[in-house]
Amino acid sequence: MKREILALQQLLQQKKIDAYLVPTSDFHQSEYISGYFKEREYLSGFTGSAGTLVVTTDEALLWTDGRYFIQAEQELEGSGIRLCKSGEEGVPTVEEYLLSIMQPGQILAFDGRVISATQGIDLTNKLQEKQAKIQWDENLLDGIWKERPALPERPAYLLEERYSGKSRAAKFADVRHAMKQYGANGHLLTTLDDIAWLLNLRGDDVVYTPVPLAYLYLSMQDAFLYISPKAIDEKGKEKLAADGVILRPYEKIYEELPTRTEGQDVLLDTASVNYSLYRCLSGNAIQGVNPEKLQKAVKNPVEIKNLFNCHIKDGVAVTKFMIWLKKNVRKTAITERSAEDYLERCRQRQEGYLEPSFRTISAYQEHAAMMHYAATVESDKALAPEGMLLVDSGGQYLEGTTDVTRTFVLGPLPTETKLHYTTVVRSMLNLASVRFLYGCRGGNLDILARGPLWQLTLDYKCGTGHGVGYLLNVHEGPNAFRWKMAQGYDSTSVLEEGMVTTDEPGVYLEGKYGIRIENELLCRKDVKNEYGQFMRFEPLTLVPIDLDGIDVQYMTESDMGALNQYHRLVFDQLSPYFDGEELETLRYYTRPLEKKS
Amino acid sequence: MKREILALQQLLQQKKIDAYLVPTSDFHQSEYISGYFKEREYLSGFTGSAGTLVVTTDEALLWTDGRYFIQAEQELEGSGIRLCKSGEEGVPTVEEYLLSIMQPGQILAFDGRVISATQGIDLTNKLQEKQAKIQWDENLLDGIWKERPALPERPAYLLEERYSGKSRAAKFADVRHAMKQYGANGHLLTTLDDIAWLLNLRGDDVVYTPVPLAYLYLSMQDAFLYISPKAIDEKGKEKLAADGVILRPYEKIYEELPTRTEGQDVLLDTASVNYSLYRCLSGNAIQGVNPEKLQKAVKNPVEIKNLFNCHIKDGVAVTKFMIWLKKNVRKTAITERSAEDYLERCRQRQEGYLEPSFRTISAYQEHAAMMHYAATVESDKALAPEGMLLVDSGGQYLEGTTDVTRTFVLGPLPTETKLHYTTVVRSMLNLASVRFLYGCRGGNLDILARGPLWQLTLDYKCGTGHGVGYLLNVHEGPNAFRWKMAQGYDSTSVLEEGMVTTDEPGVYLEGKYGIRIENELLCRKDVKNEYGQFMRFEPLTLVPIDLDGIDVQYMTESDMGALNQYHRLVFDQLSPYFDGEELETLRYYTRPLEKKS
Repeated sequence: MKREILALQQLLQQKKIDAYLVPTSDFHQSEYISGYFKEREYLSGFTGSAGTLVVTTDEALLWTDGRYFIQAEQELEGSGIRLCKSGEEGVPTVEEYLLSIMQPGQILAFDGRVISATQGIDLTNKLQEKQAKIQWDENLLDGIWKERPALPERPAYLLEERYSGKSRAAKFADVRHAMKQYGANGHLLTTLDDIAWLLNLRGDDVVYTPVPLAYLYLSMQDAFLYISPKAIDEKGKEKLAADGVILRPYEKIYEELPTRTEGQDVLLDTASVNYSLYRCLSGNAIQGVNPEKLQKAVKNPVEIKNLFNCHIKDGVAVTKFMIWLKKNVRKTAITERSAEDYLERCRQRQEGYLEPSFRTISAYQEHAAMMHYAATVESDKALAPEGMLLVDSGGQYLEGTTDVTRTFVLGPLPTETKLHYTTVVRSMLNLASVRFLYGCRGGNLDILARGPLWQLTLDYKCGTGHGVGYLLNVHEGPNAFRWKMAQGYDSTSVLEEGMVTTDEPGVYLEGKYGIRIENELLCRKDVKNEYGQFMRFEPLTLVPIDLDGIDVQYMTESDMGALNQYHRLVFDQLSPYFDGEELETLRYYTRPLEKKS
Repeated sequence: MKREILALQQLLQQKKIDAYLVPTSDFHQSEYISGYFKEREYLSGFTGSAGTLVVTTDEALLWTDGRYFIQAEQELEGSGIRLCKSGEEGVPTVEEYLLSIMQPGQILAFDGRVISATQGIDLTNKLQEKQAKIQWDENLLDGIWKERPALPERPAYLLEERYSGKSRAAKFADVRHAMKQYGANGHLLTTLDDIAWLLNLRGDDVVYTPVPLAYLYLSMQDAFLYISPKAIDEKGKEKLAADGVILRPYEKIYEELPTRTEGQDVLLDTASVNYSLYRCLSGNAIQGVNPEKLQKAVKNPVEIKNLFNCHIKDGVAVTKFMIWLKKNVRKTAITERSAEDYLERCRQRQEGYLEPSFRTISAYQEHAAMMHYAATVESDKALAPEGMLLVDSGGQYLEGTTDVTRTFVLGPLPTETKLHYTTVVRSMLNLASVRFLYGCRGGNLDILARGPLWQLTLDYKCGTGHGVGYLLNVHEGPNAFRWKMAQGYDSTSVLEEGMVTTDEPGVYLEGKYGIRIENELLCRKDVKNEYGQFMRFEPLTLVPIDLDGIDVQYMTESDMGALNQYHRLVFDQLSPYFDGEELETLRYYTRPLEKKS
């Protein structure tokens, strides 16, 4: 058994604990986690982004999903840890496994700060039926992991109103209004992007996401911000104080929450608040989705104006990359990783660019069939003037967050590949061109992107698109395009004016290639008449769609109209930033297509 | 105040009741009700199919919906009854009104047999908060309505297995299996179509629906059928007895249910079981959707084979009507009602035809803009060789139930009308042609029919389609095409192989015209591959779509392919039943369209 696991098992025996649960999470249920929180990776050696480890006194098991089966098998080899392939037939879930092994009187331990309240409550109830117990108030890694990275406490900064579009005071007023509707006079907020949005605050504690580590307790008068004392400078402190924000050290919330919430009715979302905080509450918990979630999804006019600018910058960067890539693939040695680097340099030349909004997927040929491929030193593939390179990337700018995928054609394509490429483009445009009545959710519209692929008996095993934050998470709810509903329940919200959602259908053929074309769509109001308020989408993304993959025989006149109209927009918006040969190339990349007669 | 209302108000005072609630319903929550149950119509004089009357000691109010505002105003004139327009701003719901007027200690009465258990429980709880009470065990009309029609007790008959496709014993076994999964050993069934389906029994007690009035209590051994002693003949009784069906008089269920259910766990659906029966239960009620609902929606292979035959017959009838109508509109005096009569005679010539499956909508010009128009002697409009006649009709056959709408063009149409007509046809075909992955619900697919109309900023204010029974209700759940979800919940079921759903988009312009084209679609399995089980629809309806309304300039090649393919099917299936000039006309009506070059 791996040394780190043995050390933990020893500790379990000392402390008379029967099993220890290690998820992949931070104290805020974030999508990306910083080094301090990578306990599962430290213990198991498995480096994938998703997985749960269970260590008992004589066993260790790691659950992960289909994206990571091969990688996990390799990385776990010789560790003594058993791999459990989530979703495979006959493989129990983590919870099913725990319930099967726990005996009356036994103890399951975990750090309650890395488990959501919902999960913690659920586990406690189920283990109670088996007369087993949980222990949640100690992190066993503290005594084992000598070289654990420190908790990040990088400088944070206040976002000016020309970027945020709305003052803290106005946001506080809106959220307090929502709290009243729930009958709450307190509100516990732990999701980092919600806190950052509410306070017009940004930071650098989480990779790809410009947010500081923080908790917030909002009362009707004050806002207690728990954050590293080093994070905010004097000027920032003054501004926050002016809006009733009281700064407290990050970790103090666990001591202070019991008295703060005494006798209060506290609005919180048990799906995101961690279990330890939930247990710290002394007031009455009112379950509700954070009001910040919907409010921040609906971008305000200043944010929208900035987003248009931001997408011009991002479009210029990606288009310059496209021109370089297609011109140089025959001349220069380029690999997946060197292409990724070049693209990053293109973005870095844009004013207000901060960092990538997620790890770039630069995937050549069969690598692109893996939806979440990230090139490593070992896997890095050299490009040749054949096949396709799929590049899914995005940037964090002061003027917004971007997410764009283009599949670049590097050489001649066979007929079937062109059919697939053309159909993906049609799918993307078909959803983007819809007019719909207000009230539609993602589940009503998903088939517009998926339908053309379903006609070919193809599908992509993921949603069609997700919400995008504003200088926040690249994956943001509650809007999304998805067709599957759990028990008839479409968990995506009604599409509101000002929401930004990606539209990214694809074709993925294992061992062959992957094609994905992704635009971000802004939801806008259209005509209003006796039937109701019509809505439409406006594309934010401004990057040519590589016409070398298109065969017009697979397109209708209306498909071609939509493509040509999009390319006209791209040229009009980007051409001021190009000149000489590059301008001519842009003009060629965005040329209108016609049916051959 | 109207005489009947005054009589009721007198009775209320005698009995110290403060308000009496009269919905439009029978003891079985049926869509159509027979004369015995038309209490609301008797008391108020309002003859529409939907409405609720509330009578207090000094007031009377009638609620109805937008379809009936004009009619209700006319019919209530001089009655002293106040009209409440449901859905209009500032108009309380019936429940809101009741809660606003009931004072502590007051009594609201209704006949618990015409209120669903869900409604009864809800009302009781809400009135309890106001310290008011309900009284549910007496029908006050019994003492007032001297000439109330008798409860129907027409002959019922057993459906042979060549029509039903599955024996009673097999159906009992399936339902009892479902009962076990709910932990139930009893099952109370009151919905007439579920009882008829389960027992392979049909009758004639409800207009447009071939079912007898009955209740059923199914135990693990027996089936107690509460039905008029006159309904079933000796031979039928023997067959039923052989399957463990014990006959009891219809009304006796209220006396017998308490002892029958003692100590039992009884599966029932409070949304359909009436409140009185619910109160009669002495066992433990287990809430669940009737297992019969999903089982009967999935048509079995024999039913499907019969349905194809049934739709040929119905197609022959409607096509003969179409030929007659279009040839004679210039020559003969035809009205909406005489057209309806002629169509009924065409159906009556088909073997196995029983009756219309609902009141035919024969609506000329602006009448067709009213979705639920039914021509009366007063409204009956003469047809002329101009504009359009919308005919929505259906038949009950031993081989199934049909529902078809065609809009017939009687003269030249203006350009915009042709655009609307062509778009409705495209909408219908667009949904009918979809290929989709198993798991889709109506809410995922609705936009395929609605999208082309939404592009023109048009909409129809109803669902796109509903499930259809087999020799049962023309409106049958749980499948449907609808886009609106209540709080994200799509109440329509996953589309299963063997389900039949209508596809009936339309355009309705008040004061001008209405266009609706409706086909019934059978859900079938298609290709299965690594992405899952693909599904598709097969058209059941076989009636030409009037090409005189089509302008091909509004169609894509793929739209035209779908229309031509449908018409080829119609011709192939119907032509054996036509000859001479009629055959040539059918050939012309189903001719392939081409783009003019």
